[in-house]
Amino acid sequence: MTENVNAHSQYVVGVDFGTLSGRAVVVRVSDGAELGTAVSEYRHGVIEHRLPGSDITLGPAWALQAPSNWRDVLRHAIPEAIAAAGISATDVVGIGTDFTACTVLPTLADGTPLCEVHGLWFRPHAWPKLWKHHAAQPQADRINAVAEERGERWLSRYGGRISSEWEFAKGLQVLEEDPETYRRAERWIEAADWIVWQLTGVESRNVCTAGYKGIHTEDGYPSREYLEALNPAFGDFTDKLGHRLSPLGGLAGRLTTEAAALTGLPAGIAVAVGNVDAHVTAAAADAVRPGQLVAIMGTSTCHVMSSDQLAEVPGMCGVVRDGIVDGLWGYEAGQSAVGDIFGWFVDTCVPPEYHAEAQLRGETVHDHLASLAEQQPVGRHGLIALDWHNGNRSVLVDHDLSAVVIGQTLETRPEDTYRALIESTAFGTRTILDAFDKSGVPVTEFIVAGGLLKNRLVMQIYADVLRRPLSVIRSTQGPALGSAIHAAVAAGTYPDVKAAAAAMGARTEAAFVPDHDRADVYDRLYAEYRALHDYFAGDRHGGSGVLHRLRALRNEVAK
Amino acid sequence: MTENVNAHSQYVVGVDFGTLSGRAVVVRVSDGAELGTAVSEYRHGVIEHRLPGSDITLGPAWALQAPSNWRDVLRHAIPEAIAAAGISATDVVGIGTDFTACTVLPTLADGTPLCEVHGLWFRPHAWPKLWKHHAAQPQADRINAVAEERGERWLSRYGGRISSEWEFAKGLQVLEEDPETYRRAERWIEAADWIVWQLTGVESRNVCTAGYKGIHTEDGYPSREYLEALNPAFGDFTDKLGHRLSPLGGLAGRLTTEAAALTGLPAGIAVAVGNVDAHVTAAAADAVRPGQLVAIMGTSTCHVMSSDQLAEVPGMCGVVRDGIVDGLWGYEAGQSAVGDIFGWFVDTCVPPEYHAEAQLRGETVHDHLASLAEQQPVGRHGLIALDWHNGNRSVLVDHDLSAVVIGQTLETRPEDTYRALIESTAFGTRTILDAFDKSGVPVTEFIVAGGLLKNRLVMQIYADVLRRPLSVIRSTQGPALGSAIHAAVAAGTYPDVKAAAAAMGARTEAAFVPDHDRADVYDRLYAEYRALHDYFAGDRHGGSGVLHRLRALRNEVAK
Repeated sequence: MTENVNAHSQYVVGVDFGTLSGRAVVVRVSDGAELGTAVSEYRHGVIEHRLPGSDITLGPAWALQAPSNWRDVLRHAIPEAIAAAGISATDVVGIGTDFTACTVLPTLADGTPLCEVHGLWFRPHAWPKLWKHHAAQPQADRINAVAEERGERWLSRYGGRISSEWEFAKGLQVLEEDPETYRRAERWIEAADWIVWQLTGVESRNVCTAGYKGIHTEDGYPSREYLEALNPAFGDFTDKLGHRLSPLGGLAGRLTTEAAALTGLPAGIAVAVGNVDAHVTAAAADAVRPGQLVAIMGTSTCHVMSSDQLAEVPGMCGVVRDGIVDGLWGYEAGQSAVGDIFGWFVDTCVPPEYHAEAQLRGETVHDHLASLAEQQPVGRHGLIALDWHNGNRSVLVDHDLSAVVIGQTLETRPEDTYRALIESTAFGTRTILDAFDKSGVPVTEFIVAGGLLKNRLVMQIYADVLRRPLSVIRSTQGPALGSAIHAAVAAGTYPDVKAAAAAMGARTEAAFVPDHDRADVYDRLYAEYRALHDYFAGDRHGGSGVLHRLRALRNEVAK
Repeated sequence: MTENVNAHSQYVVGVDFGTLSGRAVVVRVSDGAELGTAVSEYRHGVIEHRLPGSDITLGPAWALQAPSNWRDVLRHAIPEAIAAAGISATDVVGIGTDFTACTVLPTLADGTPLCEVHGLWFRPHAWPKLWKHHAAQPQADRINAVAEERGERWLSRYGGRISSEWEFAKGLQVLEEDPETYRRAERWIEAADWIVWQLTGVESRNVCTAGYKGIHTEDGYPSREYLEALNPAFGDFTDKLGHRLSPLGGLAGRLTTEAAALTGLPAGIAVAVGNVDAHVTAAAADAVRPGQLVAIMGTSTCHVMSSDQLAEVPGMCGVVRDGIVDGLWGYEAGQSAVGDIFGWFVDTCVPPEYHAEAQLRGETVHDHLASLAEQQPVGRHGLIALDWHNGNRSVLVDHDLSAVVIGQTLETRPEDTYRALIESTAFGTRTILDAFDKSGVPVTEFIVAGGLLKNRLVMQIYADVLRRPLSVIRSTQGPALGSAIHAAVAAGTYPDVKAAAAAMGARTEAAFVPDHDRADVYDRLYAEYRALHDYFAGDRHGGSGVLHRLRALRNEVAK
C-alpha cells in the first residue's frame, strides 16, 4: 500500500442543494483541495403538476419540492463523496450547506414539515415552495402596493419591489388560499435553515436569507400594522419566523447522533449556519472584499458584492448587513435570464442545417453558432437586443417586460442573432455595474462563476462590453466549495470567512481581457442599448408602455 | 373528331416577362378564357457574379440579364402556348407583353443591345440592368439631394425619393463608371419597350415606365440644368430616352415578318404598347376603376390604384397620369418584402422538429406553421413586429431601415413569431391604405393578386387587420392575362382597357371577410405598430435614428 498523503489532514464537507439535485464535496481545510464529490438527484425533482403519487393537481406557476429528497442527499451523497475522496470520515471536522432561495416551508415547532404530518400531506400548501414558485404574484403586488402607500422604509432596500418568490408573498398565499395549513404552520422556514436543523437538532436562522428573502433589516421585520393592512389574519406571520439571526460562517450547532448515523460523519462536528448558493460562491472565488462582484452566470445570473458602504442602488434585489460576509454590506442583483435565452434560441430559432452541421463536426449547436459568431467584427450583424425574455430583475425589477430585437434583415443569419443575444446580456450586466458605480459602491473587480464561464465567446464579449478584465473562479463546484469554506470557519480552523476564502478559495485574475478596438465599438452599441432600455422600460420610467400593454393584452386573451 | 368549340373565336397572346422566366398565355377575346400556357426559363437567370462564359466579375448588389433569354421566350413559349391551347395561330389577332421594371438597357439607334455589339459584350455596363440591380445607390442619393436642393417639382410625385432601381440612377452609374459605354448608348430603354421593338421593328415608349421609372411628368423629363448639376456630362441623358409616349393598350405597331417567323404568329397582327407586370394585373382583376387598389402580393407587394384625383400621397412610389389606365391618375405604392420575410423566417428561424413534423404530415413548413398559428386568439403571442427586413418602400421610402420584433419571451414558439411577421406586413399595408385615405384618394376596394393569395391565414389576417372584405383575382396568371387584355384593346376588339377588363378579367368579391372581434383587437395592435413605426422611422420622422446608426456601423465595419 502507498502512503496516504492526506494522513493527519483535516477535512470539511460542503453540500450544495440545487434545483434538481444536491452535491457533496470533501475539501481539505489547509488549501481547499477538492478530493471527492458525489451527486444525489432529487427523486421528485420539481413538483409542478400534481402531488407525488396522487391526483391532486397544482395551479399554474406552482413549484414544490419534497423534504425527503433533501434528506436523501445527506444519506447518499455525503458517504459517497467521502468514499470517492479516499479519506477517513473521522478526519472531517465540519459540515456546511447552501440552498436555493427563497425555498421555504411550513413546519411544526419541532421542524417536522407539514407535508409529513399525518392528514396534511394532500394539501399542496403544506409542501415546501421552491424558489421558482410564481403563483404568489397577486400577494406580491399587494405587498408592494401597501408598502408604497404606507411609505415603508425597508422597501428601498429591495430596489422598491418585493418579489413574489420571497417569504412574505409565499406565506400570504398560504394564509389566503389555505388558512387551515397556515394555522398549523408553527414555523415558516427557509430550506437553507431547515436542513441545518436536520443536522443539529436545533433551529437557527441565517442572516442572509432573513435579510434578502425575509425583509429583515436593522428595524427587524415589517410591523404588525403593516402585515394586518395586507390581511388582518397576517399580523402574526413574523411569529413563525426566527428573530435571533446567526452570522454566516457561524456555528449553528453540532452534528447529532441521528444525523451522524444518516451521513456517516462523526457526531459532534461543527455544523455551519445555513447559507445561499450564490452567496457562498463569493468565498469559493476568494472574492469577499469590498468592490469584488461575483456573477454566477448560468440559466440566469446572480450578482453578489460586498461593500463597506450602505447605498441605495436602483433595482437591486437587496442590500443586507452581513449578507455575504460578516462586517460588510452585501448587495445582490440579478438578470432573470441569461443562459436560458441562449438555450431558448438554440431550441426554437435555429434551422436544421445548423444542427446537422454541428453534429457532423461533433460540436454542440451552441459551439457551432459560437464558432461562426466569433469571426464577426463587432457591429457587423447590425443588431441590438434587449435581454428581457424572462423580464428584467435588475435594474428595472419588472417581470412583465419582454424582449426586443432590432435590425434584422433578409440577410440575418442565426449566428448573428445568437451573438446579439449574448451581447444583450452583457449590456444588461454593464447596466447593473453602472448602477453600482453611480450609487457610490463601485465595482473594482468582476469575477465570473457558473456554467457559462466555459463559453469562451460569452466571456470575451463580456470583457469587451464591460471594458475590464474578467476574473474567473477556479473551482467547477463553487457553491459546494463555498459551503465547505463556511464549514471550516464554523469548525474554528480559520478566524473568519475572509481568511478561509483566502486559503481555500481561488480565482484566476484577468482570465479574459478586453480588446480596446472592440470595446470602442461596444461603447457606441451600449449607448443604443441604454436608449432602447429606457424607451421600452415603460411609462414608470418615462418611455413607452408598449411591452406592458402587449403583456396585458396577452393575459386578457389567454383567459 | 369532335367539333372545335373555339372555331371562329378570336384569340390574343399575353406574354409576361418575370425575373427568372417568361410565360405566354393564349386567351379567348370574347370572355378571357385561358386556353393554353407555356413557360420559358431564362438560361442565364439573374446575372449577379460574373458575365456569362467569362471571368469578368461584377460588384456587390449588381443584377443583370441577357436579352437573348428574352428572345427565347418569344421563340419557345409562344408556339408552345398556342400548341397547348389547341387553336390555330391564324386566329390570333394581337399580342401584348409586360415586363419587370425598371429593367433597362443601353442600345444602338436600331435597338441592338450594346452587350451584343462586337467589342462591348465584356463591359458589364453594356448589359441590361435588372430591376433589382442596387449598385446605383450613390447616384440615387445624389439625384435626391440635388433635387431637394433645387426644389425640383417632380420630386413630390415620387414620395420625395427617386429609387436607385430607376432609369436615371442606373444611367448615371453607367456614365460615371464606364463613360465609353455611356457614349456608345444611343438609346436607354426599358426592357418593356425593347421587347415591343423586337416585335414591331419600331421604337415606342410606354407612358407607364416613363412616368414611374423615368421621372416623366406633364413638365416632361427633368431639365438639362438639373442633369448637369448631377454631372456635367449627364446633360444629354434624356436624348437617349423616348419623348413621344404611347398610351397603355395602344397599338405599338404590327408584328414584323421576322417576329412572325420567330413566334409562329401571323405577321401584321396588333402589338400592344409595352407595360409593367404589376400594372397589367389590375386589368386582369377587372379592377381599373377609381379607388380599386390591387395588391400584387408575392416576395414583395406592389400596390396599384387608379383615381380621378391627383394628390400627393406621402411615400408613394409614384403617381402618373394614365399610368395604369388611360384617363386616370395611376398610383403605385409598395412593400419591399412580404413573402420574402416569411421565406427568410422558414429558412433560417425554424427548428428541425417543425421541419420533421411538416414532412410527416405531408405539408410545407409554411403550412405547418400556419396551421399552428391560426389557432391563436389575436394578441395571444404578445408580439409586434415591424416588417422592414428589406427596408421600407411605402410610406417611408427608406431602404436603410431594418426589422424590429418586440415581446418575445422564453415561451415564444416559432408559430408565434411567424404569425407576428404576417401581421406586421398587414399593418404595413394598412399604413399605406391610411396614407391614401388621408390624402383624399380613398381606397374603396382591396383586391389581392399574386402568389400569397393561396395562403388562407395570410388572407384572413389581412381582412381582419384592414377591417374590410378582400377581393381576389380569379386568374392564376394575372400578368399574362393582363397583357392579353391589352392586346385585345390594341387589336381594336374592345374600345378601351376598362371595357376589355370587364369582359376578360375577373375577381371574386368578399372572398375573405373580417371578423369584428378580431378586428377590434387588431385596432389596438395597429396603434402600437404605428407608434413603433414612427419611433423607428428615424430622425427625419421625429423618432430615434437607431436603425440608421446600426446600418451605418454595419457598413463601416464591413469594409
